[in-house]
Amino acid sequence: MAELVGETGHVDAIDPGPLDYGIFLVVSLTSRSLIGTPGSPFTLGQAHDHLSASRLGDRITWIQAKPVEFLQSQSEKNAPKYDVAVLAHCIWYFSSPEIILETLRVLSTRARHICIAEWSLSSSVASRGSAHVLAVLAEASLESHKPDSESNVRTVSSPARIKAMVEKAGLSLQSESIWSPKEGMFDGRWEVEAVLGPRFLMEVENFVKNEREKAAILAMHDAVKAAATEVGGIKAVHAMDVWCAVFTPL
Amino acid sequence: MAELVGETGHVDAIDPGPLDYGIFLVVSLTSRSLIGTPGSPFTLGQAHDHLSASRLGDRITWIQAKPVEFLQSQSEKNAPKYDVAVLAHCIWYFSSPEIILETLRVLSTRARHICIAEWSLSSSVASRGSAHVLAVLAEASLESHKPDSESNVRTVSSPARIKAMVEKAGLSLQSESIWSPKEGMFDGRWEVEAVLGPRFLMEVENFVKNEREKAAILAMHDAVKAAATEVGGIKAVHAMDVWCAVFTPL
Repeated sequence: MAELVGETGHVDAIDPGPLDYGIFLVVSLTSRSLIGTPGSPFTLGQAHDHLSASRLGDRITWIQAKPVEFLQSQSEKNAPKYDVAVLAHCIWYFSSPEIILETLRVLSTRARHICIAEWSLSSSVASRGSAHVLAVLAEASLESHKPDSESNVRTVSSPARIKAMVEKAGLSLQSESIWSPKEGMFDGRWEVEAVLGPRFLMEVENFVKNEREKAAILAMHDAVKAAATEVGGIKAVHAMDVWCAVFTPL
Repeated sequence: MAELVGETGHVDAIDPGPLDYGIFLVVSLTSRSLIGTPGSPFTLGQAHDHLSASRLGDRITWIQAKPVEFLQSQSEKNAPKYDVAVLAHCIWYFSSPEIILETLRVLSTRARHICIAEWSLSSSVASRGSAHVLAVLAEASLESHKPDSESNVRTVSSPARIKAMVEKAGLSLQSESIWSPKEGMFDGRWEVEAVLGPRFLMEVENFVKNEREKAAILAMHDAVKAAATEVGGIKAVHAMDVWCAVFTPL
């Protein structure tokens, strides 16, 4: 973040979530980013405190709001133009593809660069990332049957789908890359644990009524289990690759 | 099959499919099996002709019927007791979990051994089988939205779910094993081709109306593409592991 805000930049940090939730989303004002990261092992509130106590602390404004509502609440005339909006691993938290598209549309009128990082749905670390890929697909399939989702995977989107939405929103791809996270990035394990925990199967029973749809989600659950077993257990599951891309308004 | 029928055994071969379809299902009578195999590159009719021309030919009776209906059509008194019923890679062709369970229930009263072989939803060949696993999950998810499915993956079931159904049907597991198919078993490639072909995306548009469910299936499609690319293309995709198990009535 220090690089983004430079010597004089200011950050508008926006997140709709409560302070005890493990995610934060940041929009910076004069040198400027929209950042979302999975917050565990810290909560959103702890992340705020940590950043506010840093040397950049007095240049961050924390705002609890939905990004689109916040951006639209600023009057056209006074609305600041952001240098950069950063969406880091937050796309999947949006509650529908429509809201992602709407957010990108508003951002395309308000930021000069939009940087997105998201899980790629692919793994280059032999089969060790497969369980993570399967787990998020299982979660997304279950979550799509709930009226309201509070999972980490509410609307799963591949890089190809995000790029299609970004283009629809009037933005153009400048560069992109895929990289494999280092050991110690536990997101793969967390998602596998979420799918293999007792709550997942209970929720499948509660929310998925059609027997064939249920069979498909249970098969995903079992494929996650098999993939984790194949690599030596949940602790050996590697996080899948990350996709990063930079876009600019057309 | 020669081993199963021995010197004097007879085979009742049952399949509901038309003769130009690439699948066959066999029930043997006195030494006896219920066999389903993916028929490509041969059709069901060609497979019949090939087997009928073999030295076992005069000991096979071909019956075009649904297995449960055929078994129930024989009167209780005259109904033969089969030595073995073999279901080889045919479980996923059944149109719902209920029909699988019903078939297993009827078989539990009519066969002394039930042998099942099915794809395991796991792959021990590093990441080369992942695309096959992901492809059948994508197909199953799409198919579950169609009123009638004619795909190779109508009701996907893991070994764990099949075992649970088999137990419910009054059968007990005697032995099971998992093995990895040799090179040249093209089922992985075929399913990946089916998902990445133009028809799949068209059918997602036609059959999946909910935007979040659609996003989940499109993500699976894209994960299949990424997994195939990761191993060097569709031709390098390996078939996933096969699960085989023998059951006997309680």
